[in-house]
Amino acid sequence: MAIISASILAADLAHLKDEVERVKDHIDEIHLDVMDGHFVPNLTFGYPMIEGLRKFTNMPIDAHLMVTNPDFHIKLFIEKGATRVTIHQETCYHLHRSVEFIKSLGAEAFVAINPATPLSTLEEILPYVDGILIMTVNPGFSGQKFIPSMWRKIKKLSEIRKDNDYKLKIAVDGGVGNENALELVKSGVDILVMGYGVFRNPNLPELRKLLSKNE
Amino acid sequence: MAIISASILAADLAHLKDEVERVKDHIDEIHLDVMDGHFVPNLTFGYPMIEGLRKFTNMPIDAHLMVTNPDFHIKLFIEKGATRVTIHQETCYHLHRSVEFIKSLGAEAFVAINPATPLSTLEEILPYVDGILIMTVNPGFSGQKFIPSMWRKIKKLSEIRKDNDYKLKIAVDGGVGNENALELVKSGVDILVMGYGVFRNPNLPELRKLLSKNE
Amino acid sequence: MAIISASILAADLAHLKDEVERVKDHIDEIHLDVMDGHFVPNLTFGYPMIEGLRKFTNMPIDAHLMVTNPDFHIKLFIEKGATRVTIHQETCYHLHRSVEFIKSLGAEAFVAINPATPLSTLEEILPYVDGILIMTVNPGFSGQKFIPSMWRKIKKLSEIRKDNDYKLKIAVDGGVGNENALELVKSGVDILVMGYGVFRNPNLPELRKLLSKNE
Amino acid sequence: MAIISASILAADLAHLKDEVERVKDHIDEIHLDVMDGHFVPNLTFGYPMIEGLRKFTNMPIDAHLMVTNPDFHIKLFIEKGATRVTIHQETCYHLHRSVEFIKSLGAEAFVAINPATPLSTLEEILPYVDGILIMTVNPGFSGQKFIPSMWRKIKKLSEIRKDNDYKLKIAVDGGVGNENALELVKSGVDILVMGYGVFRNPNLPELRKLLSKNE
Amino acid sequence: MAIISASILAADLAHLKDEVERVKDHIDEIHLDVMDGHFVPNLTFGYPMIEGLRKFTNMPIDAHLMVTNPDFHIKLFIEKGATRVTIHQETCYHLHRSVEFIKSLGAEAFVAINPATPLSTLEEILPYVDGILIMTVNPGFSGQKFIPSMWRKIKKLSEIRKDNDYKLKIAVDGGVGNENALELVKSGVDILVMGYGVFRNPNLPELRKLLSKNE
Amino acid sequence: MAIISASILAADLAHLKDEVERVKDHIDEIHLDVMDGHFVPNLTFGYPMIEGLRKFTNMPIDAHLMVTNPDFHIKLFIEKGATRVTIHQETCYHLHRSVEFIKSLGAEAFVAINPATPLSTLEEILPYVDGILIMTVNPGFSGQKFIPSMWRKIKKLSEIRKDNDYKLKIAVDGGVGNENALELVKSGVDILVMGYGVFRNPNLPELRKLLSKNE
Repeated sequence: MAIISASILAADLAHLKDEVERVKDHIDEIHLDVMDGHFVPNLTFGYPMIEGLRKFTNMPIDAHLMVTNPDFHIKLFIEKGATRVTIHQETCYHLHRSVEFIKSLGAEAFVAINPATPLSTLEEILPYVDGILIMTVNPGFSGQKFIPSMWRKIKKLSEIRKDNDYKLKIAVDGGVGNENALELVKSGVDILVMGYGVFRNPNLPELRKLLSKNE
Repeated sequence: MAIISASILAADLAHLKDEVERVKDHIDEIHLDVMDGHFVPNLTFGYPMIEGLRKFTNMPIDAHLMVTNPDFHIKLFIEKGATRVTIHQETCYHLHRSVEFIKSLGAEAFVAINPATPLSTLEEILPYVDGILIMTVNPGFSGQKFIPSMWRKIKKLSEIRKDNDYKLKIAVDGGVGNENALELVKSGVDILVMGYGVFRNPNLPELRKLLSKNE
Repeated sequence: MAIISASILAADLAHLKDEVERVKDHIDEIHLDVMDGHFVPNLTFGYPMIEGLRKFTNMPIDAHLMVTNPDFHIKLFIEKGATRVTIHQETCYHLHRSVEFIKSLGAEAFVAINPATPLSTLEEILPYVDGILIMTVNPGFSGQKFIPSMWRKIKKLSEIRKDNDYKLKIAVDGGVGNENALELVKSGVDILVMGYGVFRNPNLPELRKLLSKNE
Repeated sequence: MAIISASILAADLAHLKDEVERVKDHIDEIHLDVMDGHFVPNLTFGYPMIEGLRKFTNMPIDAHLMVTNPDFHIKLFIEKGATRVTIHQETCYHLHRSVEFIKSLGAEAFVAINPATPLSTLEEILPYVDGILIMTVNPGFSGQKFIPSMWRKIKKLSEIRKDNDYKLKIAVDGGVGNENALELVKSGVDILVMGYGVFRNPNLPELRKLLSKNE
Repeated sequence: MAIISASILAADLAHLKDEVERVKDHIDEIHLDVMDGHFVPNLTFGYPMIEGLRKFTNMPIDAHLMVTNPDFHIKLFIEKGATRVTIHQETCYHLHRSVEFIKSLGAEAFVAINPATPLSTLEEILPYVDGILIMTVNPGFSGQKFIPSMWRKIKKLSEIRKDNDYKLKIAVDGGVGNENALELVKSGVDILVMGYGVFRNPNLPELRKLLSKNE
Repeated sequence: MAIISASILAADLAHLKDEVERVKDHIDEIHLDVMDGHFVPNLTFGYPMIEGLRKFTNMPIDAHLMVTNPDFHIKLFIEKGATRVTIHQETCYHLHRSVEFIKSLGAEAFVAINPATPLSTLEEILPYVDGILIMTVNPGFSGQKFIPSMWRKIKKLSEIRKDNDYKLKIAVDGGVGNENALELVKSGVDILVMGYGVFRNPNLPELRKLLSKNE
């Protein structure tokens, strides 16, 4: 069954706990959009946010490092409570080392790729990752529109996974909502990262139910 | 009268609004410790936090940019609601331009210096700033101890201000609390940035009262 | 019909207007080799040059950004009069965003690749670009020799375009002249960027005529 | 007698030679504002411009390197014809080495400082330089207003020079024109870098005459 | 016949000459692991080490530049005695230029790729290199374990070489020893870079003999 | 009594142990010139060299970090055996933090300044350091000539130390030898870093004796 990862970038941060409590029955994990104002134009949040979350929830948390120096941050995010670290292919000289490092610290290791980054860049790392995060918008902001050519990318990765019998999960992030969630799952997606789709979606319970039927 | 600037880095971010509401009668403004994980080892928060704050408060907000690319961020922080932008001397090639740019956008312009940075580096910018923020700990984390040699720096800046009839305000940030606040004010400080001293200080009301008497 | 884009890097800059006037009947657009001394060892020119050009010509101008921070420059070059912006695949974290940004400002968006950069890096961006610029020399200087293995790259891109029915144009830059121009066009090239081939080529009118016949 | 250094950033680059010829009787040297779009937001010109100039003039040329990697460019600018290289204090880890390197190649070595950079940063390099360029505006663009506090800086440097019997020249760059040129010279300035003041100044001949009387 | 390249990173540097003398009959060349603490977390050695080696040996030396600014160092390493320079695909904007530059100075040009870097990134440079170094561990330290998926990469490159009739050599670096050396050679490897495998391998003479029989 | 710190950059690295043994009776400590090819044009050595030294000597070792990312390296150099770490003022945003960090790990903390860096930059850090290293040549290479204006700098620092009763030691590095060592000590220097002066100085024993008399 596909799971829902709630991007708190779309939550009302004035009431973080209330916001998470409000949706917690309909989500499976929390997605932390860590942006440093260098890799992406936005500067969002980092350690204090995961500390704030860990005060009231023991849900899985994915620290998605949209930063130019991910290796510097991996260890501390795991110590603060991240159960998964997602690093970008575009920012790592030594992607295999970084992935192995994340796993050695007991967290899941995902690799993310931007919309313009081809799947071929992942060829050598696929056997080692716990999952791949396909950015379906350019990272930086909540509320963007799903980029259409990403459908082909998702399906192609799904085929590569099947052909090679890789155990990795496929996650998508950006422009995911009621209108495309099920189709994404049918295309091979395991994890739907959603911001507006979680925190500003009156039909979230229905969407979750729909996904759960699609087992 | 000296004012208290509340560093929300020390607040419980699970309940940001409640935290601010709890202390709002005893503070004068909000201090936003923006850290990018490059200038300082910590990565804290940025735009989403000021957006969260602006949903419920119209208090003055100081965006203290502990980042290596401050010029990139000045405009957007003011658009999001910052009434002051504090930039670091250590990170600006064109400090005069950056200061004038902040002012041209209608915000106050402060320049911050790290503990090891001498006052002499500020010589040419003093006539143009609205204030100087003397870091009394190395920026990066809440809860550090005030560095003793900063007393001399504060007093010296206070003298320079007097000798030149500069209108600038003096702010201090780091290790400020009940035990040294009054003495700091007597040494010339106008703005006390406090994290623990605000959000984890049972005697905050008394401290505020004490400061207000010292007019 | 293939068009000729005149790289003013090969012009005599003491007489920019005269130089352009001299060749204008035989060229279709102007190619501005913007180099910053970081991405490439040469530092050529930028804004003042396009301002100088716009004083006397309304020809299309391609701002070819051989710089490490292209996103910083896109908007201003278009405001100064660029009708196309060419950015390098090697310098963009968020190539899809940059391409869409150029187009949103009303200019054509081209992506350039260095000689050692494979076509596979462009896989995901091809559906979105107005054109691809294949560097047929290492960028930096006028007057270099066409790298032979680029023939294969050009033909392969031409096939990819055909197979996918992409509308993009193919441009080449470096070592293009009388001896290979027609052959390049026959291989699928739409835009011939030439420096010496324009400004130091007594047979330019004949070359242009030759190309125009090849419709 | 103070000399006039003509910043070609303010010239009409469509007619570089004509522009220089037009003013050459009233100027003493050419000032090349080399900007890389990294140290400053503007990207102006570099090697092709000095090559263009050297085709028709043997006037002294000052290559003012407003770039973040000046050491990379020093040698080539001198080979292309620079008779002076001006490097910024803010960009050099090893300012003494860079200054000595410029001199060893037969050119004059000047060090420039931005408006917010104090004279104290120059303390150790003053004995070695041929001159100091005081930026009287923030570098980046022609046509800015002279920053008033720079008067004090100029006079202070002039005093330091006198007190230590340094042979260095004092140059100023930014907002210099008919209204303040003479006063600047009286304050100790030897070289007036002017853009608009040269290329868009109908009273340039009179200004020159005025300066020449002030011997 | 495959050759052995001795990585002196695994030697006892207290006795460099003795260490090299001890193994010289069983090795073919020396591999210099130049690391700058930026591209890789380790900072090893550079010019003084090749100078030390050149005082007593005229064996071929491969300067393997694990640095973020390889172009800056190519020329000087060759002047100091490197007979081959190996640069990383991950660090070169202009890989074709760098490769041609190395060859123009009379040295062999190899390109290295990290474990997570796919062979497809090399597509355009293969016709120009003297060899490819496949990193079979993440660069940085001696004594790591061979990454299993590298077998496939080696065999695939070997096939590409055969299919295209490229003359390039294949080298491997990391986790190479008695247990896999012969198998590597049978898979197409020409150069075995070994650290522990040379300096801490009592069976080195036997290994060399074994390899020499495999002609 | 002034001590001699032997810079092994001037030793014959083919015989490191022999070289150190040869001079050990006449030196007090070993100076490790760690250069990364970024802060300085030279790339010398790092961890393997201190490991090599620690195999045969327990002399004090000063790791002089001429690198652009000193904070990254401090801890590991101390773990490998450095008894002192010298960091450059020019490379540290948070010099006070770095100095305190070195001391917290049980090593001595020195701060170095380049020839063109004024003493005024050290004003705030002097109370915290164990010593100051005045570079008397531009760092990068052995065998350079002492820069004359450094005499004044040394004497001035010596006076500042006396006036403030600071306990810090003064070290000098570059162009130090028989001809100026005693005079340097008389000017206030405690530690003479010497390369050629140690390893290529037939009169080293006499120099040591001379210094020891000067108690």
